[in-house]
Amino acid sequence: MTITVLRLGHRPQRDKRLSTHLILCARALGAEKVIYTGMRDPRLEESIVSVVNEWGGSFDIEYTASHRGVIRNWDGKIVHLTMYGLQAHEAAREVKEIDEPLLIVVGGAKVPWDVYEGADWNVSVTTQPHSEVSALAIFMHLLQGDMALQHEFPGGRLKITPNPKGKDVEIEGGRRGRGSAKTKSSEST
Amino acid sequence: MTITVLRLGHRPQRDKRLSTHLILCARALGAEKVIYTGMRDPRLEESIVSVVNEWGGSFDIEYTASHRGVIRNWDGKIVHLTMYGLQAHEAAREVKEIDEPLLIVVGGAKVPWDVYEGADWNVSVTTQPHSEVSALAIFMHLLQGDMALQHEFPGGRLKITPNPKGKDVEIEGGRRGRGSAKTKSSEST
Repeated sequence: MTITVLRLGHRPQRDKRLSTHLILCARALGAEKVIYTGMRDPRLEESIVSVVNEWGGSFDIEYTASHRGVIRNWDGKIVHLTMYGLQAHEAAREVKEIDEPLLIVVGGAKVPWDVYEGADWNVSVTTQPHSEVSALAIFMHLLQGDMALQHEFPGGRLKITPNPKGKDVEIEGGRRGRGSAKTKSSEST
Repeated sequence: MTITVLRLGHRPQRDKRLSTHLILCARALGAEKVIYTGMRDPRLEESIVSVVNEWGGSFDIEYTASHRGVIRNWDGKIVHLTMYGLQAHEAAREVKEIDEPLLIVVGGAKVPWDVYEGADWNVSVTTQPHSEVSALAIFMHLLQGDMALQHEFPGGRLKITPNPKGKDVEIEGGRRGRGSAKTKSSEST
């Protein structure tokens, strides 16, 4: 199953860091692409392209003015993450069986009713207020299991070797940073 | 196992929404409490208290100036979520067996070395840059399984009934909002 994420209603001032986190979450857990609507934000796009260049893999970010065409023309199935849908762990049992490209729609400030209607599944993670970032993370983990955490990202300049006591970063060309390695990290987004 | 989350280095201007999402994620997935360091932020605290009042359960938010005392005096085990640690799905197998209170430390801009040293486990979700919100969500899900998504929050004024086609919100006193129900939601944080 290939996964594309559609992020609705991005507002550069208010949402920049949240959208960055959401999009990096999509990439880290194996989505192929993010499409976003709302206001176009070249700085957001640049920051994602820069992560892809440094950390590898082939992930795309694309802007479109309206979600309507994306949803109407989607050749596959559509999940909409909302507070109000089916319980995520129940919906995921069905969704993970599909053999078509999956579009996961993630809301912005106000989600138009046509999104609820256009989705094959409206899905809620916990039915409590939390975060579109955590909802997306958990739903992608439910769909893929622990494979979600083990995607490969070939071609990057930086690579981390898991280390129980701290930082171990491989830098292209064989150099290695340890302990005080300063690298672009989720901690600095 | 009871879970407390320690959020490091909150900066009100830059992090307000991210910290809100992180803390609501902790609450929705069953943490008892968040302690945060950095700059004290009464608006952050008020927004969390307001969610707890509306949506129920007994969740606390507490400020402390330094993480050092929290980590040094913690009576239980400590996990630090970072890009650089052990793979999350492997670490979770050990962590979920403990029978003591768990502190999950989630980084801010620059994590001091004593946090790496004070943690029983430094844990990485994917070893790729993404988001402390998605890292926390996935690790809490790994620890609890789908129970993470089914905690009860008694005493709230609002309650959502999962609905495949959209909004169904029960409001204290028996009123019910459907379709166009306007409620405080993750979509409006």
